[in-house]
Amino acid sequence: MAKNPSLIVSAHHAFPRYQQIARQLKQAISEGELLPGSRLPSSRTMALELGVARATVENAYGELVSQGWLERRGQAGTFVSPSVTATASSQNVAASQPQGAPLPFQMGLPALDAFPRALWARLMGRRLRLQTRYDLVMPEFKGESTLRQAIADYLRFSRSIECLPEQIFITAGFQASMRLAVRALAKPGDGIWLEDPGYRYIRPVFTDAQMVMHPVPVDEEGMQIDYGLAHAPQARFALLTPAHQSPLGVALSLERRRQLLDWAATQQSWIFEDDYDSEFRYHGKPLPPIKSLDGPERVIYAGTFSKSMFPALRVAWLVVPQRQIEAFSQAAGFLPCTAPLLIQQTLADFLREGHFWRHLKKMRQCYSERRVWLETALQNEGFEVVPQAGGIQLVMRVKGNDRSLVARARAAGLAVQALSDWRMIPQGEGGILMSFTNVTSAEMALGYASQLRKAIM
Amino acid sequence: MAKNPSLIVSAHHAFPRYQQIARQLKQAISEGELLPGSRLPSSRTMALELGVARATVENAYGELVSQGWLERRGQAGTFVSPSVTATASSQNVAASQPQGAPLPFQMGLPALDAFPRALWARLMGRRLRLQTRYDLVMPEFKGESTLRQAIADYLRFSRSIECLPEQIFITAGFQASMRLAVRALAKPGDGIWLEDPGYRYIRPVFTDAQMVMHPVPVDEEGMQIDYGLAHAPQARFALLTPAHQSPLGVALSLERRRQLLDWAATQQSWIFEDDYDSEFRYHGKPLPPIKSLDGPERVIYAGTFSKSMFPALRVAWLVVPQRQIEAFSQAAGFLPCTAPLLIQQTLADFLREGHFWRHLKKMRQCYSERRVWLETALQNEGFEVVPQAGGIQLVMRVKGNDRSLVARARAAGLAVQALSDWRMIPQGEGGILMSFTNVTSAEMALGYASQLRKAIM
Repeated sequence: MAKNPSLIVSAHHAFPRYQQIARQLKQAISEGELLPGSRLPSSRTMALELGVARATVENAYGELVSQGWLERRGQAGTFVSPSVTATASSQNVAASQPQGAPLPFQMGLPALDAFPRALWARLMGRRLRLQTRYDLVMPEFKGESTLRQAIADYLRFSRSIECLPEQIFITAGFQASMRLAVRALAKPGDGIWLEDPGYRYIRPVFTDAQMVMHPVPVDEEGMQIDYGLAHAPQARFALLTPAHQSPLGVALSLERRRQLLDWAATQQSWIFEDDYDSEFRYHGKPLPPIKSLDGPERVIYAGTFSKSMFPALRVAWLVVPQRQIEAFSQAAGFLPCTAPLLIQQTLADFLREGHFWRHLKKMRQCYSERRVWLETALQNEGFEVVPQAGGIQLVMRVKGNDRSLVARARAAGLAVQALSDWRMIPQGEGGILMSFTNVTSAEMALGYASQLRKAIM
Repeated sequence: MAKNPSLIVSAHHAFPRYQQIARQLKQAISEGELLPGSRLPSSRTMALELGVARATVENAYGELVSQGWLERRGQAGTFVSPSVTATASSQNVAASQPQGAPLPFQMGLPALDAFPRALWARLMGRRLRLQTRYDLVMPEFKGESTLRQAIADYLRFSRSIECLPEQIFITAGFQASMRLAVRALAKPGDGIWLEDPGYRYIRPVFTDAQMVMHPVPVDEEGMQIDYGLAHAPQARFALLTPAHQSPLGVALSLERRRQLLDWAATQQSWIFEDDYDSEFRYHGKPLPPIKSLDGPERVIYAGTFSKSMFPALRVAWLVVPQRQIEAFSQAAGFLPCTAPLLIQQTLADFLREGHFWRHLKKMRQCYSERRVWLETALQNEGFEVVPQAGGIQLVMRVKGNDRSLVARARAAGLAVQALSDWRMIPQGEGGILMSFTNVTSAEMALGYASQLRKAIM
């Protein structure tokens, strides 16, 4: 068997050096000093220049190749990857974006620049030092009790939801939350109301469980409960985003909340309340979650840290009624929480020490500002932005085929989405969806809006 | 809405202090200084003794309450939790075990004392410092490319498996791996051969997918392929632990490996090779994985870091044939990898820098020694240990009902398991299963063996 050269090299050279070199190269690429498609010096030349071993440079190059920043072309040498650029357009603001950098308008991301990474790293470092050998074992199936306690405290304090830690189940994300809820409560053939338009990537969870999906239209008061009552009253579930409907951003009205709860109580059906972005409200007083009004105990509340913290964390949670703890615990035995213990512990600290609350407060301010920047810029370019009270995305009304407009925008490296792609039943007006979370200045907003107009008008 | 007192307190007092106190209390409990059920001083008294604010002590108590070390009994005060003890027996070696500490003989755990936690913490700390804002986004669906590259290198070096990083899919554990494989390749009604006895907690994955399970008996040469060929030749899958059959510890013979591969090639069936503990072999030369002989490309190889690193990590992986990359990529779009980015990055460093290889080498030595300690101790007590060449568990032959013997042992706090509970079809001889990984001395082995004899003989 041939020995692995990278293992041998790494045993003889100090590690940080090649990684420092890799970082410097990344920075040079992302700052445009090294252009996409340009050739790098040979590892021999670079090694002489830097005064390091050639293998060190090879390792740095190898790391960046595996991350997609560089590519090797045999005898021709090593090049800055052209795919670092999303398109070949010179107008494209996505040029020289490093791997993982959001494209303009990219949805589903919090403000990456605003997360307190140094604080998070400090808390995690402390946890790492405090861990004992007993922290190496499999985490609890329903998640760590310290984190469940911290979430219960946060929900009481911030969301007016009273629950015991035992009612909370930690998961590896919203999809995992829904899989757990479906395993605990659903059987094949059960009907579920889904908002139309709505978040499409959750639908496989219900088709996998052989459930029947009933699209229910959304208007300016949220899901049209009357429609559900008329067309599929026997459904056993309803999934909603009542705070700011995803993607339209409207809030479910108080009357409809009552209607929905009445239906659930009468039919003994279950409401899945997806409260993914309710922290972000910029005008007026937000309605409390349906869960906080849940006298009949028919609401399964789903929260996530993907938006309020960051998506790489992979942590979400459910709050279930007390009488359903047993069913969910059994389900969690089959679908145990896969969030690593260290992550759960650090997150618990982040919540308990008040950092989460402070971060959310800061983000509300930040998003409120960024939202206005982008909304104003889009209006200046003649776009019609639909007014919304909260959330982390914008909708623009457009005439004509929103899919073909979006295709043109995407070809220009702009990551907007077509409202039609979020619909189950093709109907209603077209729209363009986008996020403002990573629009970090009024100037950037103006640039983005101008590019969008040029791309699609 | 009432303000959350814990948030207020934590904003005004230094955090580490209460956690230091909590740690000291934990230590006092786990070392037997504070006995289960005993009452702690009031927070006021304790605060005066330690010279800290009362709120600090309250916080420390609160932390330990939420972790299950302490419990509050209203006016009566705060007590060391009696549940820290597994049973009330004074002979019970599990007495005063902290949360998460393994019970004697507990299966499915690596040696918790032998993992290089300080090194791991250092690597993770470095990764934390190197992370950029772009490391906050959702990880790649199939796992990070740096980790996939590192695993490919390890497999080539250590397991004689040649594969590209593109063939590797990272998951949050063996169960998640099997869910991904089933989504990529199986349809309702597909048959699967399962080793009998075998790992039962994986079976829900196949019943969820409406597959038909065919138990295939295991003898001293592993799964009886002839039996499968005679009873369910049309099956589309076979799941095996060929290195050391779980739980019997036998290796699948070379002849049966050939038979199995022939069947898969002829039937166009798939072999799921669960290679969970193959690194741990103490006598003779191990057979290479079936995957390394996989000319016809019918093997899906499943590895995990739960045993070779630690279970709290929640990282495993699959190696799939090149022609199946597309099917698995599509499946991963529905069941994306939920291992947090930071964990994947740190693990990649651990592998690339040679620490993984060194750790495995150390563990082989450690397990070889612990195995002999426990085997010898059990033989001294008159137990019949089945000889095995590797793995991380032991099997003892027993006469009579193994389930009732095991129930008695478990009542005494000994976490052995009954072989009958691992069988799908009730047949064959009884046995007692146990792990030696956390038997840290010959004396401990003698103590455990003696307790087991007293409990069940």
